[in-house]
Amino acid sequence: MSRKKVTFADIAEYTNFSKTTISRYFNNPDSLTIENQEKIAQALDELGYQENKLARVLANGKSEFVGIIVPNIYLHYYAEMLNQILSTYGEHNYKFLVFIGDNDKKIEQTYINELLAYKIEGLIVLSHTTTSEELASYQIPVVTIERESAHVCSVCTDNYLGGVQATSLLIKNNCSRLIHINSNTPEYVPAYGRIRGFEDTCKTSNVPYEIITADFGPTYDSTVEHIGRIFNRIEQMGDEKKGIFFANDTYTNIFLNFIIRKYGSLPPHYRLVGFDNSPIASEAVFPITTIGQQIETMVRNAMELLILQMNEMKKRVPKPLSAPIHRQVAPVLIQRDTTDPCTM
Amino acid sequence: MSRKKVTFADIAEYTNFSKTTISRYFNNPDSLTIENQEKIAQALDELGYQENKLARVLANGKSEFVGIIVPNIYLHYYAEMLNQILSTYGEHNYKFLVFIGDNDKKIEQTYINELLAYKIEGLIVLSHTTTSEELASYQIPVVTIERESAHVCSVCTDNYLGGVQATSLLIKNNCSRLIHINSNTPEYVPAYGRIRGFEDTCKTSNVPYEIITADFGPTYDSTVEHIGRIFNRIEQMGDEKKGIFFANDTYTNIFLNFIIRKYGSLPPHYRLVGFDNSPIASEAVFPITTIGQQIETMVRNAMELLILQMNEMKKRVPKPLSAPIHRQVAPVLIQRDTTDPCTM
Repeated sequence: MSRKKVTFADIAEYTNFSKTTISRYFNNPDSLTIENQEKIAQALDELGYQENKLARVLANGKSEFVGIIVPNIYLHYYAEMLNQILSTYGEHNYKFLVFIGDNDKKIEQTYINELLAYKIEGLIVLSHTTTSEELASYQIPVVTIERESAHVCSVCTDNYLGGVQATSLLIKNNCSRLIHINSNTPEYVPAYGRIRGFEDTCKTSNVPYEIITADFGPTYDSTVEHIGRIFNRIEQMGDEKKGIFFANDTYTNIFLNFIIRKYGSLPPHYRLVGFDNSPIASEAVFPITTIGQQIETMVRNAMELLILQMNEMKKRVPKPLSAPIHRQVAPVLIQRDTTDPCTM
Repeated sequence: MSRKKVTFADIAEYTNFSKTTISRYFNNPDSLTIENQEKIAQALDELGYQENKLARVLANGKSEFVGIIVPNIYLHYYAEMLNQILSTYGEHNYKFLVFIGDNDKKIEQTYINELLAYKIEGLIVLSHTTTSEELASYQIPVVTIERESAHVCSVCTDNYLGGVQATSLLIKNNCSRLIHINSNTPEYVPAYGRIRGFEDTCKTSNVPYEIITADFGPTYDSTVEHIGRIFNRIEQMGDEKKGIFFANDTYTNIFLNFIIRKYGSLPPHYRLVGFDNSPIASEAVFPITTIGQQIETMVRNAMELLILQMNEMKKRVPKPLSAPIHRQVAPVLIQRDTTDPCTM
C-alpha cells in the first residue's frame, strides 16, 4: 500500500493510451467510452495513483466542500441533524467542513471567511449567530435550518401544527386545564409557532389555559431548579386533570421525575406532551408522548435547496434565485405513556 | 460586502508597497516588520481581499485540514467527543472534515482516499471499521480514540481503573453480591478493561460476583427487552444487597426504570453504578452514580499527538515516530443517588 508519485506519463505508458487521453479522463471523462474509462480507472488502482483533487478544484472551481455551522452538538437535536447531513455523503459526495458556532460571532465570521478562502460550494447554517442578511451578502448558496431566514433559503418544522397536535391530544384526553411551559422565546424564532398553536387551539376549544415562561438558566441543574418551582406551583392548583405541553422533551422529563419522586407513579390528573422526540422521551421512566420533528425529511429538503443553488453556480451564466425558497416540514405526534391512548 | 477580485497589484498600489513585498506577506510574513504586516492586513480588509487558500496549499502542502471518522453521532459519547474536537478550531485553526463511518468499510475507505486527495494533514479515527495496520499504511499522521490501535498513536480511557473504581464503591456500600452487566465485548477492545477491573476487584475483596453478558440487539427497544429479562432474573435472587456495575449509563437507566416501575422508589437492596457520565445519568428519575470519561482531556491528548506528527511532516526531512505513542486518561467517579454517600 505504499504511495509513490504516479505521473500522467506513467499511466499513459501502463495503459497504452496517449497522455491527452489520460488528461481527458480527468477533465472530461464523458468524452471517453465507458470501456476506456474503466481501463484507466483500473490502471490507476493498480498503479496506486494518488489524485490531487486540490489541483482540479483550482482548475474548475468545484471543491465539493460544503460548510456546516451548528451552535453545538451537545443537544441531541443538533447532533441528529448533523448525523443526517453527514450521512448524505454516500449519495451526493459532498465533503463537509463542520464548525461549532457557539454564539461567538467573531470566531464564526473568521471561520466563514476561511471556508470561502477554501472555495466551499455552499453553506448550511443552524446557528443563530449571523443574520440571514449577512449570510446573503456572502453571495454563495446558503440554506438555514430552523432559524431566522428572511434573506436566504430555509427549512423549518411546522411548529404551529406541532402546537396544535399536542394541544388537541390533551383536550381529547379530557384535560380541564391546559398549561404550556416554555423559555422566553422571541416571536421571530420559528419555535414561537408552538406557543401560537397552543394558544389558538385552547381558544378555539374554549378550554382555560395558562402559558408559563421562564429563563431556565444555562445549565441542566438550573433548569431542574426552575422546573421544580413550577411543579410546586402547579401542585397547588388541586386535583383537576391538567394537560401540560412542554417546549421540549428535556423539560417534560424533569417535570415527570418530580411527579414520580412525589407519587411513585404517574397519577391520572397529570397528562404530559413534549417536543422533539429526542432519546430522553423514550428513556424516561414512563416513555413520553411527544411531537417528533422529521429530521431526515428536513435534511433531504435542505440538501435539495442547497444543490439546486450550487448546480446553478456551475453554469456558465448562473441565474440567482429571484427570491429565497422556504420549506416547512410537518411534525408527527408520537403517543407514548404520558397521555391516554387516543385516536387523533 | 460585495466581493470583487483584488490582485496583488491592487494591494501594492493601495499600500504603496512593492508587489514583491505583498508576495512576501503571503509566503513569508515574518520577513516583514510587524508594522508592515499590520498595514497590509488592514489594506486587505479594506479592499475586501478574498484569499485563495487552495492555491497556497498547492504551493506549500499545508492544507490545515484534518479528517475525523466517527462511527455515529447518535450516541452522546461520540457527539461530545466530536464537539470537543471541533472546538479546538479557535486554538489550533485546523478545519475538520467529518465523516460518519457507520461500519461500511467500502464507503469509509473511499472517503479516506478522498481525504488524501484533498491533502489532509492528519486523521482522527473513532470508528472501528478500518484496522490500525491499514490506517498506518496511509503514511499520514493518525491518532485513534478508544479503539484498537496497535500500529498507530492512540488515546484511551483507563477502563481497568474505571472498573476498579465502580466495584470498590459498591463493596464500600456493603453490597454482598456483585453483578456486572455488559454486551459481548471482545478482549482486544479497550472497554474490555472494565470487565477485568470488576473481576479483579471482586476476587481481591473476596465478594461473590457474577458477570452477565448478552447481545442486546441493534435498537433501544431490543435493549430494554433484554435488560427486562435480566431484571426479572436478578429479582429472583432475593433481598440480599446487590451492587450492579453496568457497561454504560443507558443500561443503568433502563434497569433503574424497571426498579421504579415495580417499587415506586429505589429500595435499599439495589445499588447501581453506570459508565460514561452521559446526560441520561443526570436526567434519570434518580440521578445515576457513574464513571465519567474525561473527554476534554482525551481530546487535548489526541490533538497533541496529532500535531506532534503533523509538525514533523512539515520539516524538510521528517523523522517518523520510531513506535506509536499510546496515552491513557484516568476516569473519575461521580457519586449521585443510586449509591450510598461514601468517601473513596
